[in-house]
Amino acid sequence: ARIIKQKIEYLLPLNLGKLASRARSMRKYIKNKIKSFKDRKIFWGKYFQWAHASQDVISQEYETPSDQQIEKMITESIQLSGLVSMVGAGPGNPELLTIKAIKVLQTADVVLHDHLISPEIMAMIRKDAELIDVGKQAGHHKTKQHHINNLLIKHAQQGLHVCRLKGGDSFVFGRGGEEVLMLKKHQIKFEIIPGITAAVGCAAFAGIPLTHRAHAQSLAFITAHCSDSIDTLDWQFYAKENQTLAVYMGLIKAELLVNKLITHGKSSHENVAIIENGSLDTQRTITGRLSELPDMIIDHQVKSPALIVIGAVAQYAQQLDWFKPIENPVKHTSNLTYLKSA
Amino acid sequence: ARIIKQKIEYLLPLNLGKLASRARSMRKYIKNKIKSFKDRKIFWGKYFQWAHASQDVISQEYETPSDQQIEKMITESIQLSGLVSMVGAGPGNPELLTIKAIKVLQTADVVLHDHLISPEIMAMIRKDAELIDVGKQAGHHKTKQHHINNLLIKHAQQGLHVCRLKGGDSFVFGRGGEEVLMLKKHQIKFEIIPGITAAVGCAAFAGIPLTHRAHAQSLAFITAHCSDSIDTLDWQFYAKENQTLAVYMGLIKAELLVNKLITHGKSSHENVAIIENGSLDTQRTITGRLSELPDMIIDHQVKSPALIVIGAVAQYAQQLDWFKPIENPVKHTSNLTYLKSA
Repeated sequence: ARIIKQKIEYLLPLNLGKLASRARSMRKYIKNKIKSFKDRKIFWGKYFQWAHASQDVISQEYETPSDQQIEKMITESIQLSGLVSMVGAGPGNPELLTIKAIKVLQTADVVLHDHLISPEIMAMIRKDAELIDVGKQAGHHKTKQHHINNLLIKHAQQGLHVCRLKGGDSFVFGRGGEEVLMLKKHQIKFEIIPGITAAVGCAAFAGIPLTHRAHAQSLAFITAHCSDSIDTLDWQFYAKENQTLAVYMGLIKAELLVNKLITHGKSSHENVAIIENGSLDTQRTITGRLSELPDMIIDHQVKSPALIVIGAVAQYAQQLDWFKPIENPVKHTSNLTYLKSA
Repeated sequence: ARIIKQKIEYLLPLNLGKLASRARSMRKYIKNKIKSFKDRKIFWGKYFQWAHASQDVISQEYETPSDQQIEKMITESIQLSGLVSMVGAGPGNPELLTIKAIKVLQTADVVLHDHLISPEIMAMIRKDAELIDVGKQAGHHKTKQHHINNLLIKHAQQGLHVCRLKGGDSFVFGRGGEEVLMLKKHQIKFEIIPGITAAVGCAAFAGIPLTHRAHAQSLAFITAHCSDSIDTLDWQFYAKENQTLAVYMGLIKAELLVNKLITHGKSSHENVAIIENGSLDTQRTITGRLSELPDMIIDHQVKSPALIVIGAVAQYAQQLDWFKPIENPVKHTSNLTYLKSA
């Protein structure tokens, strides 16, 4: 309808007559025949171009294409190859979406999204797009990866524009690589739209400089959602000074994480910050010391999504706290007052 | 002018008469008295609100405020405290700006920008904003940090909205932390808008998954723009397998970087990729093996900005190459054919 209106406006000085009513009468038919929004745009472009070319010079009247011509235009409009856009949604604040991400959200036909995408971002998806929740929360594994793969292939092979919407960035602990390799194998066209990854987004909104000449010359991102991933990491290195450690999905295994670090020589007094719902109106930042981390999570009932920052820079969360959407001051756990076993 | 037009449009059915001509006549005066765009918006809001309240019920004519009333409105409109927005501009493609970043670019009065911000992004800045190039390219140190600090303080203390625009993200090797700490010390209001950091942006546009279950369970960001920063790094760790190393500003010291890694046990055959002008129309990706890196830079005349990715995942740059803005296919350096001393 939007496109017809645009076209009508564009052609306003001319006599549309039968052409416009023909367009109106077959809208539903076309929508049914051409599933992809992008392809329908192509169809209506062809339809009005045809009319423009066939305009009677004298009467200024437009011809309308025959049924056969319409069917030909339909066939020509349907792109045989679909497109999968891997889109990083960032940490949750809709204003942290990139322009490119918004463009995809507003044109894609199908959106396969993770479970934790914020409602504000979900609201930016084109109204008549098909939404499929393929969320896999840590510990849930609600939908298996092969099921996601099948859905991506199925929709793309129908010529649709599929948006694969993931929190943060698809290539930083998002398994985006595996999905893209699978698409490549099936010769499906794709594009990769990076997003603000959790560490970068949460750090900015919590006032934690991830690198700092005096405190952190390097920066490491790890994930700690299961014992397996924790066991394979080089804790000797992560226990060292002068670096920032950003831990993705670290809530469940926080105790193991802390034990590993302290066992390998990290000071139990090292600064830590937990950023829950980073960049959202419900953001909470809780700071404290490494040995207190498991208790901080329990006492403040921290829930996913949350990022853990370990390193001297975490101390700045109090001082540089600037984001005050609602009354959620940084909660500082007083030094080592926790006595429960960690 | 834009705002007056909006207001005029809004009030169109009513008789603006003297009010509109008064507004027109004092535009320059107001712009001179109220330096900040945000504050001028406040002033014009007050001006038309006043008019609305003082409208003659019978004649529908507006009164115009007295000179004294105008001066009072001016005083009330000027916000005493400025604001500094630390904005990450991302890797360069303007479509990778966040919504929030664009909002700042279109309202800030002064933009202090790095040297390497792409022209396409510079073009998105409000036309009458003051632009100050404070670029510090590695090796140049064109403007010293204390000079930047002074400029930030000076403009913010005039009540202006200052945008500090940095490539990538301000908190990942951007010295944003130091600038924000300095602002805090001077009690200047600030906000931190994260950007797509080079590693994330370049990896997406080059088809390199930074993490991958089979090849890279962790991810480290380092900078290698001077010997000092290289010497302090823990090469023992970076030389290990199963991780991805993203090197910022690594062109100049590439030879030293490679020597450090190989000396500490990294395979000279490890996959590497250089992404020059990542996400821009001029993007080039060059892949090869670790020992070839210095020659790859020389032979392909790679220039800044460029990101170096070291690790098994770099091999995917060829297979998952999807971004084809112009004819710039991935250049693969054939295995170890370089014989020049590295």
